Amino acid sequence: MILARVIGTVVSSQKSTKIEGIKFLLLEKIDPVTMKGKGDYVVSMDSVGAGPGEIVFYVSGSSARMTNVTEGKPSDSTIIAIVDFIEKDGVYTFQKNRE
Amino acid sequence: MILARVIGTVVSSQKSTKIEGIKFLLLEKIDPVTMKGKGDYVVSMDSVGAGPGEIVFYVSGSSARMTNVTEGKPSDSTIIAIVDFIEKDGVYTFQKNRE
Amino acid sequence: MILARVIGTVVSSQKSTKIEGIKFLLLEKIDPVTMKGKGDYVVSMDSVGAGPGEIVFYVSGSSARMTNVTEGKPSDSTIIAIVDFIEKDGVYTFQKNRE
Amino acid sequence: MILARVIGTVVSSQKSTKIEGIKFLLLEKIDPVTMKGKGDYVVSMDSVGAGPGEIVFYVSGSSARMTNVTEGKPSDSTIIAIVDFIEKDGVYTFQKNRE
Amino acid sequence: MILARVIGTVVSSQKSTKIEGIKFLLLEKIDPVTMKGKGDYVVSMDSVGAGPGEIVFYVSGSSARMTNVTEGKPSDSTIIAIVDFIEKDGVYTFQKNRE
Repeated sequence: MILARVIGTVVSSQKSTKIEGIKFLLLEKIDPVTMKGKGDYVVSMDSVGAGPGEIVFYVSGSSARMTNVTEGKPSDSTIIAIVDFIEKDGVYTFQKNRE
Repeated sequence: MILARVIGTVVSSQKSTKIEGIKFLLLEKIDPVTMKGKGDYVVSMDSVGAGPGEIVFYVSGSSARMTNVTEGKPSDSTIIAIVDFIEKDGVYTFQKNRE
Repeated sequence: MILARVIGTVVSSQKSTKIEGIKFLLLEKIDPVTMKGKGDYVVSMDSVGAGPGEIVFYVSGSSARMTNVTEGKPSDSTIIAIVDFIEKDGVYTFQKNRE
Repeated sequence: MILARVIGTVVSSQKSTKIEGIKFLLLEKIDPVTMKGKGDYVVSMDSVGAGPGEIVFYVSGSSARMTNVTEGKPSDSTIIAIVDFIEKDGVYTFQKNRE
Repeated sequence: MILARVIGTVVSSQKSTKIEGIKFLLLEKIDPVTMKGKGDYVVSMDSVGAGPGEIVFYVSGSSARMTNVTEGKPSDSTIIAIVDFIEKDGVYTFQKNRE
């Protein structure tokens, strides 16, 4: 899974009928040590109610269909967790409520 | 899913029988913040009637077979949505009718 | 799917029994705007009778098994179309018989 | 599979119900010749009890669901082995107990 | 499939029970025109009895499970062929017994 920050939303009215009602979030991948954005973006289906600014991780490939929200749907990227904290070598590089 | 602009068409008469009648669009991946093309291209099967110049997102991998058009077909890239707008940090970086 | 030029052949006598009798072509990925090779290579199983110098596109991942030739076989890259022409913004960047 | 070093942990309370109870480790990919980190990170589900500092390899894609721990779960990266040693051209580039 | 040279071995005693008895080879991807290593490495499960120094190609993704050795196992990279020769534009860039 890859760590990313929710930075926006993508809206489409003309789309595959299978993805009606699903929310598409725009994510920027981050470096989990510096927590800086990498300028690399992906559109992800949301299965956990993630909001703007939150750090999440998403799952790619066929496993993106393994959530209750995306089962049988054409997703190759689904957010499966909102991150509380990231610990590296015993030090927090990120804590949700202290950012 | 990855955001891209429809920039052309690829035509083939000698092809796998399973993909007869499917439209192959040439896409250029875009940076969704600047909306500029990245010089990186992919051939995508169309499941939504996308046309030249439109901003779309496509799905990769086995999920590219999860649309009514591509079920059971050898696609690893299928357009599943035409984008109306992209919003980043509360500001539109793209609106379909104002481009 | 990715556009590429057939530049050679790879031959193996000691291989998985499942891929006996299949032709392995060496492909160089191309930039579909300039039609130049990118110096990036892949070995692809042929399902359409492609020959040296031809422009093709191949499918990756599990969809590489979705042709009559590769069903159930360990392919992650299968040629599914020989390209007749590529059109970008109304102009041909490639036509098979005029190259 | 890709070689990496366990460098930390990612914790989430709001996540897909399917991944409750699974440990998410932060991995840094390594160059197996120099054993240096590549500054490229991935969040991986642990199926073998890996700990901080250990060299592991993880499996990506649908095969990340092929362990007893991750079966049916939305994983695209699962640690499947803790590495004892890496041998290149007859010389050890890594031995677990001598690092 | 991607061309690579077998450069070493990876050994693990603490691993997923499903991959007991399988040999893990360390591969360096090569440029099939110059035959030089690219400094890019992958751990691959062996299904053909490949040895050190040999040129092979491996299959990625779910197709890595489509050999007799790796069926149902968590592999995302399996060697499926030892290469005898590579021909590019009518000239051999590699012949096994003349290297």
